Amino acid sequence: MSSKSNRSWTMNGFGVAHLAPAETTIPKPGPHDLLVRVKAVSLNYKDRMILDGLLMPNMTFPYTPLSDAVGEVVGTGEAVTRFKVGDRVLGHVIADWVEGEGPAVLHQKTLGMTLPGVLAEYVVFGEGAAVLAPPSLSDAEASTLPIAALTAWSALFEMAKAVPGETVLIQGTGGVSLFALQFAAAFGLKGIVTSSSDEKLERAKTLGAWKAINYRTRPDWDVAARDATDGQGVNHVLEVVGGENMRRSIEVLAAGGRLSLIGILGDTTFSSSIFPVMRNRLTIQGISIGHRRGFERMNAAIEVAGIKPVIDRVYGFAEVPRAFEHLARGPFGKVVIALS
Amino acid sequence: MSSKSNRSWTMNGFGVAHLAPAETTIPKPGPHDLLVRVKAVSLNYKDRMILDGLLMPNMTFPYTPLSDAVGEVVGTGEAVTRFKVGDRVLGHVIADWVEGEGPAVLHQKTLGMTLPGVLAEYVVFGEGAAVLAPPSLSDAEASTLPIAALTAWSALFEMAKAVPGETVLIQGTGGVSLFALQFAAAFGLKGIVTSSSDEKLERAKTLGAWKAINYRTRPDWDVAARDATDGQGVNHVLEVVGGENMRRSIEVLAAGGRLSLIGILGDTTFSSSIFPVMRNRLTIQGISIGHRRGFERMNAAIEVAGIKPVIDRVYGFAEVPRAFEHLARGPFGKVVIALS
Amino acid sequence: MSSKSNRSWTMNGFGVAHLAPAETTIPKPGPHDLLVRVKAVSLNYKDRMILDGLLMPNMTFPYTPLSDAVGEVVGTGEAVTRFKVGDRVLGHVIADWVEGEGPAVLHQKTLGMTLPGVLAEYVVFGEGAAVLAPPSLSDAEASTLPIAALTAWSALFEMAKAVPGETVLIQGTGGVSLFALQFAAAFGLKGIVTSSSDEKLERAKTLGAWKAINYRTRPDWDVAARDATDGQGVNHVLEVVGGENMRRSIEVLAAGGRLSLIGILGDTTFSSSIFPVMRNRLTIQGISIGHRRGFERMNAAIEVAGIKPVIDRVYGFAEVPRAFEHLARGPFGKVVIALS
Amino acid sequence: MSSKSNRSWTMNGFGVAHLAPAETTIPKPGPHDLLVRVKAVSLNYKDRMILDGLLMPNMTFPYTPLSDAVGEVVGTGEAVTRFKVGDRVLGHVIADWVEGEGPAVLHQKTLGMTLPGVLAEYVVFGEGAAVLAPPSLSDAEASTLPIAALTAWSALFEMAKAVPGETVLIQGTGGVSLFALQFAAAFGLKGIVTSSSDEKLERAKTLGAWKAINYRTRPDWDVAARDATDGQGVNHVLEVVGGENMRRSIEVLAAGGRLSLIGILGDTTFSSSIFPVMRNRLTIQGISIGHRRGFERMNAAIEVAGIKPVIDRVYGFAEVPRAFEHLARGPFGKVVIALS
Repeated sequence: MSSKSNRSWTMNGFGVAHLAPAETTIPKPGPHDLLVRVKAVSLNYKDRMILDGLLMPNMTFPYTPLSDAVGEVVGTGEAVTRFKVGDRVLGHVIADWVEGEGPAVLHQKTLGMTLPGVLAEYVVFGEGAAVLAPPSLSDAEASTLPIAALTAWSALFEMAKAVPGETVLIQGTGGVSLFALQFAAAFGLKGIVTSSSDEKLERAKTLGAWKAINYRTRPDWDVAARDATDGQGVNHVLEVVGGENMRRSIEVLAAGGRLSLIGILGDTTFSSSIFPVMRNRLTIQGISIGHRRGFERMNAAIEVAGIKPVIDRVYGFAEVPRAFEHLARGPFGKVVIALS
Repeated sequence: MSSKSNRSWTMNGFGVAHLAPAETTIPKPGPHDLLVRVKAVSLNYKDRMILDGLLMPNMTFPYTPLSDAVGEVVGTGEAVTRFKVGDRVLGHVIADWVEGEGPAVLHQKTLGMTLPGVLAEYVVFGEGAAVLAPPSLSDAEASTLPIAALTAWSALFEMAKAVPGETVLIQGTGGVSLFALQFAAAFGLKGIVTSSSDEKLERAKTLGAWKAINYRTRPDWDVAARDATDGQGVNHVLEVVGGENMRRSIEVLAAGGRLSLIGILGDTTFSSSIFPVMRNRLTIQGISIGHRRGFERMNAAIEVAGIKPVIDRVYGFAEVPRAFEHLARGPFGKVVIALS
Repeated sequence: MSSKSNRSWTMNGFGVAHLAPAETTIPKPGPHDLLVRVKAVSLNYKDRMILDGLLMPNMTFPYTPLSDAVGEVVGTGEAVTRFKVGDRVLGHVIADWVEGEGPAVLHQKTLGMTLPGVLAEYVVFGEGAAVLAPPSLSDAEASTLPIAALTAWSALFEMAKAVPGETVLIQGTGGVSLFALQFAAAFGLKGIVTSSSDEKLERAKTLGAWKAINYRTRPDWDVAARDATDGQGVNHVLEVVGGENMRRSIEVLAAGGRLSLIGILGDTTFSSSIFPVMRNRLTIQGISIGHRRGFERMNAAIEVAGIKPVIDRVYGFAEVPRAFEHLARGPFGKVVIALS
Repeated sequence: MSSKSNRSWTMNGFGVAHLAPAETTIPKPGPHDLLVRVKAVSLNYKDRMILDGLLMPNMTFPYTPLSDAVGEVVGTGEAVTRFKVGDRVLGHVIADWVEGEGPAVLHQKTLGMTLPGVLAEYVVFGEGAAVLAPPSLSDAEASTLPIAALTAWSALFEMAKAVPGETVLIQGTGGVSLFALQFAAAFGLKGIVTSSSDEKLERAKTLGAWKAINYRTRPDWDVAARDATDGQGVNHVLEVVGGENMRRSIEVLAAGGRLSLIGILGDTTFSSSIFPVMRNRLTIQGISIGHRRGFERMNAAIEVAGIKPVIDRVYGFAEVPRAFEHLARGPFGKVVIALS
């Protein structure tokens, strides 16, 4: 197999202009590894930050980006027992986090960061860092799960244990937020979605949003959300913005409420008054994607509920720069790149 | 108000033959009490056991039975703040269990046991032992919630935290089991229902059962259920039978699985091999209906999901003995008595 | 009893100059209340903030301050069952929080805030808002428990479940911090104490501090604390300062670590980088004293371990202003006022 | 190294008479393995059951028994990063359980069961299945930890979260029970020890037992234990007997109490009335030794508290049969075999 070539895209510098097709040799799996022919990959906001040199400013080039991939097992190391050739698998992004609290130092074995990225025809996953793709999903749909879906799932059902009937405030309509909305709608939670676009809010309602708030017309969206809950406040906030936004997120929480700190779209810091945190006995918890057992549980739940990931657009393997440009515009759901 | 009479049914001895209409004065609410005009009550298996002298053999007569009631607040004590006249409320059966671990000695203030029962036109609830009835339900539907629904809810979402995608084995089609099935179907759990009746299993499928097993044709129903889960076993069992049945319930559990011990339809003891409990790190947990906060959370979840309790038949207030006879035959869902 | 007079201290305006002795009638217990002759009270930092008009700027005068009191039951309402005359009891400060998540709106029934304070010879506690004082403690010692000890206990053992062998960073040597230190030393946790005073650090070591860090000589105390844990970081921080201090508190936490947000000695806001919270999956949780069940559990633990609260000084009932002045200087442990 | 011989003891049939010295070659570590020169091993009750053919009746001979070992790393596979030559390590018995819920099927990689036993001069541990031995312990002391200590620890602090001040009923004075007693005494729990020997009970008191009950003179030991807790019952039972004994264990539990099902000294089945389990909302949980992260946490706690394992006797490597005979007589604490 090593005679065949492995087509990929690599960064030769920061910025989308330095992203270019490349050909390398197909990697050879170690004893516990899977060789996987990639079918589809999906983009995350952090991929844009890496491309722009914001997240990993000291990286060395050439570098293959991206973390989310689905593919078919085409070869296995001699010690592999969890999978066989022909299985359709998803790579687990934090490869050394199987379950529980995980490694003391995170991101020493993370796909597309400290491990090679997946924007290539052939990639290698450790057998312990892969899960079966949900059979009900297409390749494009399945490719969206490893970061966006698992982050939303972990926030709601692994780190927290959301209970049916509770309320969840969901910020915007990016990848993580739409998965949170779909999970909420499917599993009995009341999703309150905020956006600056009435059109996007309409689409969120179609996906099952219980309430929709335009934060442009209601800059005091925390008041609007509290009103929607008869003054009680919401039980969960999935914070993807940070900074000043988080002040309102903390104000909107009900007694005993929980803020899952997920994203940094607005700012990489946060600040708040201490009083509401103490008085309402709030919990703020940092979320880092999640562990493999959570991934497996989520896939089972997706199958039960028949959830179909929201894809804004699928690009071809030749269109990678356009896909990144689409991501920068703020898609409604996920941007996917299909191989073959 | 005390000049009006309060129609009720009272036990003057054990057995349905000693259940008779009675007239008493309307009770007077204390400072923290609600006077409630009852609209509907529902029967539970334990009411039959009380009627037959099996559960409370030392009771004194006359005794007004039943614990589940919905009604309208028609009077309030002077210190009441949680409710007002006109509210439609459900009595919380374990009246002194608001939340948390609850009283060290249970059932010192339990409706229809150590507090007067609710089979009467007018009853008194402590304001701390009542919740608003879900607006989406009729009186008959709402009357079924206090014991059967809350027991199923507590087992799945308060004492345990069932996660979407998990499997729940549900025994039979009585009141608790059908609520467990409806909660499972609404909130992303896979409900496996056992019954001796193919017809009831068909109806269970209509309600959302993921698998249905006839334990008459499959006396090794634990093997059948394990096969249905690809050999992994189920995550939750709601045990309503006890005795020998529980051996199979323990065998069918997956690693880390949980048996909620709820009922004694078959036997008041249980026994098991220790090995599967240790090897699979199983949890067996006793369930006693639940606390008021759980009741409130459940009602919110019922509203979100639009769950309609399954009522086998509604009887008139004059037909109480027939309602008990129906209960003895093993209804599909709840038996209700409507007042007015 | 109402003919006797009730000596107390009342605020007639903000500032210690407006604190003056007063005489009122002895309060009359309601049906579920205890009349308690106070033996000792203790001061908390929030009492100083109330006195200075910082915490409750809109209060009406005259106002009896303080929340922590121990005393003897000298009368009981006719419905009281939990206590009897002669019992030595402590008032539970958040009177309507028995266990679990507690009231949706906190501080509607809090001693010395929305309920009358305890700086008086006779006070009334609801029977549900009192606990037996630990028999091993003197009156002065027992009076220190309701806020300072219960806050430290709740942070470590109710909201979190600290496990023997874990590390706890403790800021300063005020009331909450010294209880945290004593609990740590007694129950197998490694307490790391910070202070600006070597002398206080020496005394902290005598109380069982595992490490002591002078933040004047080590302004990078977070680095010093991390070094002390072989680079792993600490498992728990009890944050009593807020503001900029909290940046270091977040930096010092180990993977999966937890910051209990308790106090506002330095600032009423906080801010932080989001990255360590996400990367290390940190939890920040607001603490509000705690519930009555936690108080009971804590008292049992104090008895087992023979913990003696650290009292800096006991003042007489005539010396209340001096006691407040002592509090302002930053005592080592608690400041107590003895009655009798 | 492979030219050197590896002295061991092997079973050539069931029964102590078929246990004999053997010489094999020194095993060769794989890429992720440690070669360890064993310093001391300790015996567990399950080793006796294996020797007698009760636990693994279908094993093939020759077979090297035992699971608990401490030793020095004398060689490492080329991929090893967690340890280095010279480290003193303990093998983790359930080698594939790092943390969290662990493998779905237990005991596929368990030392002395499905992996080779440790009664040999040289053994191999996976680097992921070893922990550093606590520096404060001698080799003999450290060798007692992997099963007995970790089982007691997991029951109290991993599967449950025992809180200071709670009560723990401890059955007998075998290895697991004495560790439970020492943990209880060190970490603020009240240990109630039962035994048929007043002499052993005296020694238990020396180790910190809060109460001691001779079940020969008090066959109703559950009543005696309940009396000792002022009628409340105990919070935790560590059940090492099973069978009829467990009926009393369930009766003695307080509301919300927990029975950790650990051992089968008396019977491999259990039975109980369902009523106390439901009424007191009891939890029964099976315990299987524990995971590696728990092992690491336990070792940290042992260091903090300065706990010294109780060793009844240390035998030489030539005295293995006598050590097994000692185990059969019911030692007070652990039986150890020293290599040197």
